[in-house]
Amino acid sequence: MVDTIRNVLIPVENGYDTVDVQVVDNAIAAISPGCDATNSAIDGKNKLLLPGFVNAHTHSSEMWQRGIMSVFPLELWLAELYDFAPLDIEKVYLSALGTAVETLLSGGTTVVDHLVLIPGKELETIASAVRAYKEVGIRAFVAPLIQDESLSAGIPSGESEQIHEPYFRSTQATLEIISEAVKQFHRPDEGMYIATAPTGIQLCSDALFTGCIELSEKYDLCRHSHLLETKAQEKLAQEKYGCSAVEHLKRIGYLSDRTSLAHCVHLTEADITILAETKSTVVHNPLSNLRLGSGIAPILKYRQAGINVTFGCDGASSNDSQDLLEAIKIGSILHNVTDSDYQHWITPRQAVEMASLGGAKALNMTSELGSLSVGKKADLVMYDLTSLSLLPRTDPIGLLVLGRPTNVVNSVWVNGKQIVADGKVKTIDVDNLRQELFNHSQWQTTRKSQTVAQIEAHYRTVMNLS
Amino acid sequence: MVDTIRNVLIPVENGYDTVDVQVVDNAIAAISPGCDATNSAIDGKNKLLLPGFVNAHTHSSEMWQRGIMSVFPLELWLAELYDFAPLDIEKVYLSALGTAVETLLSGGTTVVDHLVLIPGKELETIASAVRAYKEVGIRAFVAPLIQDESLSAGIPSGESEQIHEPYFRSTQATLEIISEAVKQFHRPDEGMYIATAPTGIQLCSDALFTGCIELSEKYDLCRHSHLLETKAQEKLAQEKYGCSAVEHLKRIGYLSDRTSLAHCVHLTEADITILAETKSTVVHNPLSNLRLGSGIAPILKYRQAGINVTFGCDGASSNDSQDLLEAIKIGSILHNVTDSDYQHWITPRQAVEMASLGGAKALNMTSELGSLSVGKKADLVMYDLTSLSLLPRTDPIGLLVLGRPTNVVNSVWVNGKQIVADGKVKTIDVDNLRQELFNHSQWQTTRKSQTVAQIEAHYRTVMNLS
Repeated sequence: MVDTIRNVLIPVENGYDTVDVQVVDNAIAAISPGCDATNSAIDGKNKLLLPGFVNAHTHSSEMWQRGIMSVFPLELWLAELYDFAPLDIEKVYLSALGTAVETLLSGGTTVVDHLVLIPGKELETIASAVRAYKEVGIRAFVAPLIQDESLSAGIPSGESEQIHEPYFRSTQATLEIISEAVKQFHRPDEGMYIATAPTGIQLCSDALFTGCIELSEKYDLCRHSHLLETKAQEKLAQEKYGCSAVEHLKRIGYLSDRTSLAHCVHLTEADITILAETKSTVVHNPLSNLRLGSGIAPILKYRQAGINVTFGCDGASSNDSQDLLEAIKIGSILHNVTDSDYQHWITPRQAVEMASLGGAKALNMTSELGSLSVGKKADLVMYDLTSLSLLPRTDPIGLLVLGRPTNVVNSVWVNGKQIVADGKVKTIDVDNLRQELFNHSQWQTTRKSQTVAQIEAHYRTVMNLS
Repeated sequence: MVDTIRNVLIPVENGYDTVDVQVVDNAIAAISPGCDATNSAIDGKNKLLLPGFVNAHTHSSEMWQRGIMSVFPLELWLAELYDFAPLDIEKVYLSALGTAVETLLSGGTTVVDHLVLIPGKELETIASAVRAYKEVGIRAFVAPLIQDESLSAGIPSGESEQIHEPYFRSTQATLEIISEAVKQFHRPDEGMYIATAPTGIQLCSDALFTGCIELSEKYDLCRHSHLLETKAQEKLAQEKYGCSAVEHLKRIGYLSDRTSLAHCVHLTEADITILAETKSTVVHNPLSNLRLGSGIAPILKYRQAGINVTFGCDGASSNDSQDLLEAIKIGSILHNVTDSDYQHWITPRQAVEMASLGGAKALNMTSELGSLSVGKKADLVMYDLTSLSLLPRTDPIGLLVLGRPTNVVNSVWVNGKQIVADGKVKTIDVDNLRQELFNHSQWQTTRKSQTVAQIEAHYRTVMNLS
């Protein structure tokens, strides 16, 4: 299979060049002022070609609750979320399709789905998401979200004595599910990966982390977790370990160059040094950090310390979109208010590199992904620069990152296969998906979460809210 | 002229009702479960009807520089902006069209254009923007941006002795331009308004402010200015007046219930009390405040103090879009990180009210605009709830405010006239506009501003940047 993209703009050191890009099988075969195109040629005129971005942290099935979740901090929000989480394999499939489509149409070619599992149907949940991503053709890291402590254990106890119910499934049974998922679904050559993904220190025992480390080493899997998203988690780590969560994760050997950590809002200077030394990746989810009031992650400090940072949308009920360009824009400009020296601010070109090469680093795939380089896998996105939202013409990458691009993704290739053309997803019927999402839902107004009613008073006390 | 919108969702106190809405001439004539529609009926099924929002602060001609401006704080950014500002009446017209279209397609029915004037062609600049807004049919407050001090006077002098060139035009000549603009273009019955708009304390003398107050009283005009956007302006006010900018503006009588103030990032508690007492409006421009590193305006405090707050996109080279829904989303969720008590956070319904009724208050027009009420002017926006970005179905307003709505504006009425239908602007040819914006521009990379080169060292010194 050969595709040649003719006369497309690509960024080079001091501006842009107009080139032809040849894709052969699953890789970039040539980038040149004019390569021999005897096969189908794709018109790249007035278009910009970039390496695909990575939506490096999301929870696809949260899409069923976007727009409806109360304005709550994480701990109460999670309680509400789980009271109404979908328990239906078909819905998992549809929301994975939706997540894939929104990611593709906002510049992403890879999604990391920290997938909430339906209790008792864990492998079916994973199978359903895998099926959706294969059908769309997006590169997918399905990271089954696991824990072995019950939800209330995630809130610091403070001065009070708290007793938590044991989690419904044993640590060993949970690890066996992941092991089985690897055997059934982990197919790197096909762009489908399983990652080990203990949700975070707030709900996982050391035994679960250690089991995940073993699986990661045995099967060469990425590791993915939440880390210090809220002040409550910072308190909890001190209660649980007597040290910071990062120090504890380092001690048990969880941090590595294939470990990506979502959020990282409340880290100490010592924590920052540890993440840099272990070559761990921070996945920045600016929109959910704002929506849940978690805080502004100190991303400029991370970059100065040499930590790899990339972007995620986070689940669609804490954002509430899956638009990666939105996450990149806000995740860049947000930090200008944290450092008065503008020489430290993230430029649009740096943001693009964080979203592409930074994403590849998070997945330990820099030799295969993340830049327009001959020999790398052809995960490419071509943007239409004649969209009203990208006009008048100025700096294409500046417009893409700092603007509010709408209907700008013209074409997408993943693993060399073109799956979006003329702005339309070719692999699935998106109108049919819209109809299915419509049919499986109904307009709602307020709901009341029973769990929130039970835990809110304790939460307010321990967080010193009057 | 009669339009009847049938079976459309509207928000009511405890959820949504499905109603028919009748528009007769320029007003809402009826809202009922089913009114007598013998005239043309518009299908509102699976759609949401809201009062139009106000894009309460922008500078339309900045659209020519979106995507290309350096990552700078306001003072350096302004220097770069003015070095490359368009000096061409045709460009002013095209960017006003573009601003109007992007505002309409993101829920806005009114725009407040703090319009940068081309020196020596001031009335032609105003005429050009007025023509564009009339052609599109959007309600427009053209607020010619005036000053009577030269740009370098806007930077605090600190310890140093600074000498500034006099401004090229006298205060009196400037006021005469505004007076003439009122006579030529101020036509409230036609939805076209001139506002007095001294840029702010940083570049205006008391004589200019006082002249604007007189014009405002004589012709019943709104007053619109920037206020305390940056820390540099806070310093400058102390140097200039020996008190805060707000105290000074109160003293000279500029603050009133028809005064709207863009930004308001650096206010004291005493300043907040003054804005509340004078019934002034704060126009929140969250995206440019982030982009320029100006800071996070304390919007939750303003709301608690009873100050009216509404949203603006700000000019497209400090944002760099004119998408009002983006400004509303970020302008709501941004503040969750400033107050740990989630009971103070802005809900989606409150955000909608700020953008509609809050906008009407800013313009002293609450009796005519800002809510779905029989007798008010029909400035209405109807959203298509079957867009992928608003699915699955949950809470329509939650999805609209917290999501990333794309292609969702189905219809817009301004002053009773339908100017958007089926997602397309009916009054102008948008494809032709795109072509014109394309033809009048070219892709660029970096530029070097001469003025920045002259003032950067002084700026870094006075702002204590090493």
